[in-house]
Amino acid sequence: MGGHRGRLDQPTMITAVSPTRTATMIRSVTVTEFEWVPDGSRHPLRKFAVDITTHDHQQGSYVALWSAPPLAVPQVISAARLLIGQDPRDRERLWNLAARSLAKHDRIGYGALDIALWDLAGRSVDQPVWALLGRQRDRLPAYVSTVSGRKGSGALGSAAAYADYAEDCVNRGALAYKFHSFPGSDVADEIAILRAVGERLRGRADVMTDPGKGLDTLADALRLGRVCDEVDAFWWEDPLRGDAAPAHRILRERVRTPLLITEFVRPLEHRIGLAHQGATDLLRADPELDMGITGVIKTAHAAEALGIDLEVHAAGPAQRHCMAAIRNTNYYELGLLDPELGNPLMPPVYADGYAEDLSAIGADGCVPVPPGPGLGVAYDRDWIDSHAVATHTIAD
Amino acid sequence: MGGHRGRLDQPTMITAVSPTRTATMIRSVTVTEFEWVPDGSRHPLRKFAVDITTHDHQQGSYVALWSAPPLAVPQVISAARLLIGQDPRDRERLWNLAARSLAKHDRIGYGALDIALWDLAGRSVDQPVWALLGRQRDRLPAYVSTVSGRKGSGALGSAAAYADYAEDCVNRGALAYKFHSFPGSDVADEIAILRAVGERLRGRADVMTDPGKGLDTLADALRLGRVCDEVDAFWWEDPLRGDAAPAHRILRERVRTPLLITEFVRPLEHRIGLAHQGATDLLRADPELDMGITGVIKTAHAAEALGIDLEVHAAGPAQRHCMAAIRNTNYYELGLLDPELGNPLMPPVYADGYAEDLSAIGADGCVPVPPGPGLGVAYDRDWIDSHAVATHTIAD
Repeated sequence: MGGHRGRLDQPTMITAVSPTRTATMIRSVTVTEFEWVPDGSRHPLRKFAVDITTHDHQQGSYVALWSAPPLAVPQVISAARLLIGQDPRDRERLWNLAARSLAKHDRIGYGALDIALWDLAGRSVDQPVWALLGRQRDRLPAYVSTVSGRKGSGALGSAAAYADYAEDCVNRGALAYKFHSFPGSDVADEIAILRAVGERLRGRADVMTDPGKGLDTLADALRLGRVCDEVDAFWWEDPLRGDAAPAHRILRERVRTPLLITEFVRPLEHRIGLAHQGATDLLRADPELDMGITGVIKTAHAAEALGIDLEVHAAGPAQRHCMAAIRNTNYYELGLLDPELGNPLMPPVYADGYAEDLSAIGADGCVPVPPGPGLGVAYDRDWIDSHAVATHTIAD
Repeated sequence: MGGHRGRLDQPTMITAVSPTRTATMIRSVTVTEFEWVPDGSRHPLRKFAVDITTHDHQQGSYVALWSAPPLAVPQVISAARLLIGQDPRDRERLWNLAARSLAKHDRIGYGALDIALWDLAGRSVDQPVWALLGRQRDRLPAYVSTVSGRKGSGALGSAAAYADYAEDCVNRGALAYKFHSFPGSDVADEIAILRAVGERLRGRADVMTDPGKGLDTLADALRLGRVCDEVDAFWWEDPLRGDAAPAHRILRERVRTPLLITEFVRPLEHRIGLAHQGATDLLRADPELDMGITGVIKTAHAAEALGIDLEVHAAGPAQRHCMAAIRNTNYYELGLLDPELGNPLMPPVYADGYAEDLSAIGADGCVPVPPGPGLGVAYDRDWIDSHAVATHTIAD
């Protein structure tokens, strides 16, 4: 039992002397929860923004997009308390404080905070995050990642409809196409869609499938894997429940298509441990899920040391800056796109035209990396404020 | 990207037909957050109770004690929605629904719900949970697990004070003693306390230490490990940051004392994976942290299949019923005890004298397993209601 945790029934608070004295200390963190009703939906969706402010009025901001849902907010607030009074340049020390403080938890709540610290760091020296990290590339080869369809209705209601949309995406510049099938992940549906998409794009673009861990048995996963090989898929992703190494070694032995798991695996050492165990060909990391830009870059470096590729999960400015600074990576996940609605789940929070839909893809099949300071995006504060439903301010 | 999750920005809702038709369906889940100021503290502590009620007025209850802190409440509420309208006997199916719904998260929120389902199951047939699981034992050999001391003050302010308390615990029946040192986990303090305790108890009782992942370097962990060997410790627990397999294999190769990790590792397959990788000698599971009694028993069975022992983490009625039904286990963690305050962090929620302090230890050095139906404890509803600060009701 972690006695320190038990003692407080709160995340462990660890204090340490900052390596350097400075007048630049974090004064407050504001977490703004906001809601809006996405196009095509009748239900409001809730996301949140974080703003970190120093005593000398530097600011770093981030709006969590995909992977840090409302479940994470209590963790964000808890981890934000660790930041107050700290030097915002101490990103490594603060990352380690948060990792220990939330050690028993998934630690998702620290992702948005680390990203905002990187935004602050970039803005404070008028440089983009990719420049602080060190640039490898500024064009990101993009694949379209679909929403889940609805069997029998709508624009992704059948295998043929998935194939039609795949063709449309490739015609509009996408270099590859990954689908999420109908909720429930029936293996027959998975196979039918994969065959239809694979045949439609054969020789034109890469194809990937992502059952999102929907298959309950290894046998069903192997059935799907056979079809991945048949259509020469670029990767197959999270076919099977859980992340057990023995099962995924069997999949890798029996299926030729490269396997991608670890989107559902949180701490760094377990993601890397699965690669050590021969349980995956490619690794995942996500700045919102995996403790920020710092967490993604650590995963990328560990993957590089293993000689394997790290695929950054999901779309967003933090993902773009990460991928810009990683050599051993292949594709930017432009998602989740809907044939009729574009990117309906992306909150309309950008004041500068930053987009995560097909319009972002250039003639080279790539999306750009924002060139401005920090994350390089301008948030629409009026929109966020007018949709705010709860605000939490953590301050000294 | 898990398309289903992204689509809803909520845990995936999965529906499936219940295997049998029944009139016994879950009607509501109530989550009651309560606060009280523990003895010796000036700050209120918040815990929560869950109550699951069926249409025919069966009820299952659990008060989360240690490991499901307020950070878990949004997960509890989210997972509770999965239970409404379901047959409460479908524990395996519901466990799998929750595991998928919270797949990217630590899943801690489902622990209290699974425990309450077991309580309901036992009460519905007037049998204790251990009888439903199948009993292995009804006396649980106990070790005292201390709170963290405060260096230089209080009853655990020095190495000698830890040794004095160790001797007192053994004189009062404890078979073993595990300490949590001062917050901050300075390796010199860890070593001084371990030497003092080890010398005091040599030949009389087992000694364990738990730095709670406080040491930042493998080198410091090895220094502590040498002293574990010197005092012939029964196990050493979570000495080092993170749960990386290579580092823990080094510790196991260089230190003779059995190593216990995985308290900080959440999904089942990663706990077992660390044993597969030779990274630990003993495994941990906790009904609040690891998806309930169901999660602990699965871990115990997987450990049994590996031929190793599963030590149930923390004190409480759910832990007692689990340990009662497991062969491959050694000690009950009676904690977190304070020489002056008893068990100050345990909420005083029992109406029947159920205790988690030295008074629970019998002449055989063991604590009992509650014999009554379900978890076998009676909650003090008046106390809980009078300390309630928030109530969430999830119903159809």
